Amino acid sequence: MSAVGAAKLTARDAEITVVDKKKYDTFHPCAMPFVIGGYLQSINLIIEDLNYRMMGVDLIGNAEVTNVDIDKKKAFIKQGPEEKEEVVDYDQLILCTGSYAFIPSIPGRDLENVFSLKWIEDAKAILEAVKEAEEEIVQKVVVVGGSAIGIEVASELSHRGRDVTIIEMEPQLMPFKASENFAKEIKKELIKTGVKVQEGMALKEIIGGEKVRRVCYGHERTEVTMDADIVILATGVRPNVELAKKIGVELGKYNAIKVNERMETNIDGIYAAGDCVQVKNIVSGEDSLALFAGPAVRQGRVAGINATGGNEKYPGTVNSALVSSRTFFLGLAGLNADQAKELGLPRIKGKVTAPTKPHYMPKSTEITIQLIAHEEDGKILGGEILGKEKVDANVNYIAMAIQNEMTVYDLMDIDFCYAPAVSETIYPIVKAADAIIRRLERKKARAKKKK
Amino acid sequence: MSAVGAAKLTARDAEITVVDKKKYDTFHPCAMPFVIGGYLQSINLIIEDLNYRMMGVDLIGNAEVTNVDIDKKKAFIKQGPEEKEEVVDYDQLILCTGSYAFIPSIPGRDLENVFSLKWIEDAKAILEAVKEAEEEIVQKVVVVGGSAIGIEVASELSHRGRDVTIIEMEPQLMPFKASENFAKEIKKELIKTGVKVQEGMALKEIIGGEKVRRVCYGHERTEVTMDADIVILATGVRPNVELAKKIGVELGKYNAIKVNERMETNIDGIYAAGDCVQVKNIVSGEDSLALFAGPAVRQGRVAGINATGGNEKYPGTVNSALVSSRTFFLGLAGLNADQAKELGLPRIKGKVTAPTKPHYMPKSTEITIQLIAHEEDGKILGGEILGKEKVDANVNYIAMAIQNEMTVYDLMDIDFCYAPAVSETIYPIVKAADAIIRRLERKKARAKKKK
Repeated sequence: MSAVGAAKLTARDAEITVVDKKKYDTFHPCAMPFVIGGYLQSINLIIEDLNYRMMGVDLIGNAEVTNVDIDKKKAFIKQGPEEKEEVVDYDQLILCTGSYAFIPSIPGRDLENVFSLKWIEDAKAILEAVKEAEEEIVQKVVVVGGSAIGIEVASELSHRGRDVTIIEMEPQLMPFKASENFAKEIKKELIKTGVKVQEGMALKEIIGGEKVRRVCYGHERTEVTMDADIVILATGVRPNVELAKKIGVELGKYNAIKVNERMETNIDGIYAAGDCVQVKNIVSGEDSLALFAGPAVRQGRVAGINATGGNEKYPGTVNSALVSSRTFFLGLAGLNADQAKELGLPRIKGKVTAPTKPHYMPKSTEITIQLIAHEEDGKILGGEILGKEKVDANVNYIAMAIQNEMTVYDLMDIDFCYAPAVSETIYPIVKAADAIIRRLERKKARAKKKK
Repeated sequence: MSAVGAAKLTARDAEITVVDKKKYDTFHPCAMPFVIGGYLQSINLIIEDLNYRMMGVDLIGNAEVTNVDIDKKKAFIKQGPEEKEEVVDYDQLILCTGSYAFIPSIPGRDLENVFSLKWIEDAKAILEAVKEAEEEIVQKVVVVGGSAIGIEVASELSHRGRDVTIIEMEPQLMPFKASENFAKEIKKELIKTGVKVQEGMALKEIIGGEKVRRVCYGHERTEVTMDADIVILATGVRPNVELAKKIGVELGKYNAIKVNERMETNIDGIYAAGDCVQVKNIVSGEDSLALFAGPAVRQGRVAGINATGGNEKYPGTVNSALVSSRTFFLGLAGLNADQAKELGLPRIKGKVTAPTKPHYMPKSTEITIQLIAHEEDGKILGGEILGKEKVDANVNYIAMAIQNEMTVYDLMDIDFCYAPAVSETIYPIVKAADAIIRRLERKKARAKKKK
């Protein structure tokens, strides 16, 4: 949709055809946990009609591009339950094939009440299973995977009164995303919402008759069996590159489509954007998967502009992420402390817990920020944030700082606004930067002394 | 306090003496409207003990520096009701003499129940006058001045059930701060809180016996008399430079202390920071008064570090400001459309009203952002923001953009985080930047055609 919008604005007379698998125009995947938890009253709230036709866009819904003739520039389409075939000519093609839910090959994964959570149909099915519980029984829910979606759906189902356990294979929540020490704080917050957390535990088997009844999980030495009425496999997503592969579009090391800054693939006239591509991580300079809505929207815009004669570049991502529950938010941007270490970057941490507003204001809450900077020049590399409010803003401050190559010293000079209704005079992020500066200055002073 | 804190961290063994007029350690001036409006239950909430002594700082409170011998480096002090004299030697002196409330010379300004609002004593007096009203009478309050403090105290007293009128001499609210067209939107929001607004009207006389009973205001052609039980003169503050003048510290065109980037005055060993100095406006490059808590804190830090042997620079201000009421916030950063015009900068506006969160989320509200960019290169010059939430974050995004010399194109690339609980995939500020880009691109296209 972002590519379509940008294309329409760049070349008003462009003829645009959208081929989409969905039976409806669009939906809001990130809001599914709130529907499942009952925070949003109806699933229809997050399904939307986009008025493609009003925009002069031809939508072929409930359809799939099965193949592309890249020489004759023809896309072959199958539509509807009858698989009606159609051929569409194109000048420029944009692949936005997204991602699919990765399901581990585990015995029992096809049992009833075992779900993944990628499509609106998944949310509907989970919602039905949650609702059908008899009132006197507390449903037992096992969420497999302690990353963003796992945390969100677990905390929502806990708010809904279900007995929820997260099983995470890695020894921490938000593996490969949050640093080990910060993951402990996330766990604390999650436990406060009533969710139980089992880390370093792999799912081994899903057991039941027609319906799931138990799950078995553990590591080399241990094996635990526990009751489960519902199992949600939040075991990650993978780029959907089936079509790309088939037509000869080059893939990268993450098995995602390789694109340049203009979102062009190796094939002339074919662009790609969204979860199906790999893009530059701005901090590390390396290829990475973004797999978030924000980058997808920005990439789509660039692809749409370039496909219609414009010239835009997508610089890459700092992997800004926000995990939300009703009681806390987790924010990430750039590299965390462990990632910086793995990349061999000498880094220095500044961690503070400070009020978001003056203590005398009602609703003042605390936020924890762990800021990471390069030890040599103080350049900001990333940060992790946990709190009840202002987490999104702090993610964005860090993203802006990284993308502008700011140091912790530069951050001290930013003219952050102040009013007691919303902030302290000295922001928590500035306190974190100041903590780093003090350590850097002490290091400098020691180095001077040695000389 | 900020200078003291920074000095103590820079040189732990520094001997620091603070000479302060106040009878208590400190208070939070920006929170006074909330006390007056009853949003904060007690005035004692905003008076604070700073534990100076625990920090090893010598505090001489309820005192004033009456003179300084700059050659012998001695400060002459008078303390307490007996005006006890004392002399303190110093190596470095930091002037943080702040500002005073400007009171126009208007007949009747000394009547009972006519107040200014600068010190905690003012807030106490206003609070008593507000409380003493008989229950069956709705007090009539006239607030003179439609800038930040005027708007805040007016909206708070309106929430408290008082009949409040703002009289503003200039033809708009937030004169010299907000642009004319944006001021109209501020007015609309303020009127919604129940406040009446009279613009282009100067206060001519305050009438009464012992107590104020009426005010007379108008312009050349008109004169209006209205009843008033309480008058609050929110007619601005001026730098307090009495001592600076006396001892030969150089003042600038705003009658404020001239300082360099190190916050040094013209006199060796004498620094200055806060409302009493004038500093560079980063966008216009010209001298300006900041008169906000944020810049004061940042300047104090720089002065404190430099006075104890460090080397820090204060780059100036973008005049980030936040005006808060219970129902809306107004944010400003950089230049507004009118200011850019006055400076002769070719500028282009992008104004959007957009939801802060997806429309399907509870508590989704609208925010209006007017972004200003340079017409030639799209460099961000400033912005005005009005909304119920996220106004502070947007002020800060604009401040960071200006201070990093970002263009509207750069803003499209920022990896803003997304979660439906707190944001849209495309932020309102990005939509405003995009609106500017489209106009810039159309201009470019037209210019190309002409060639």
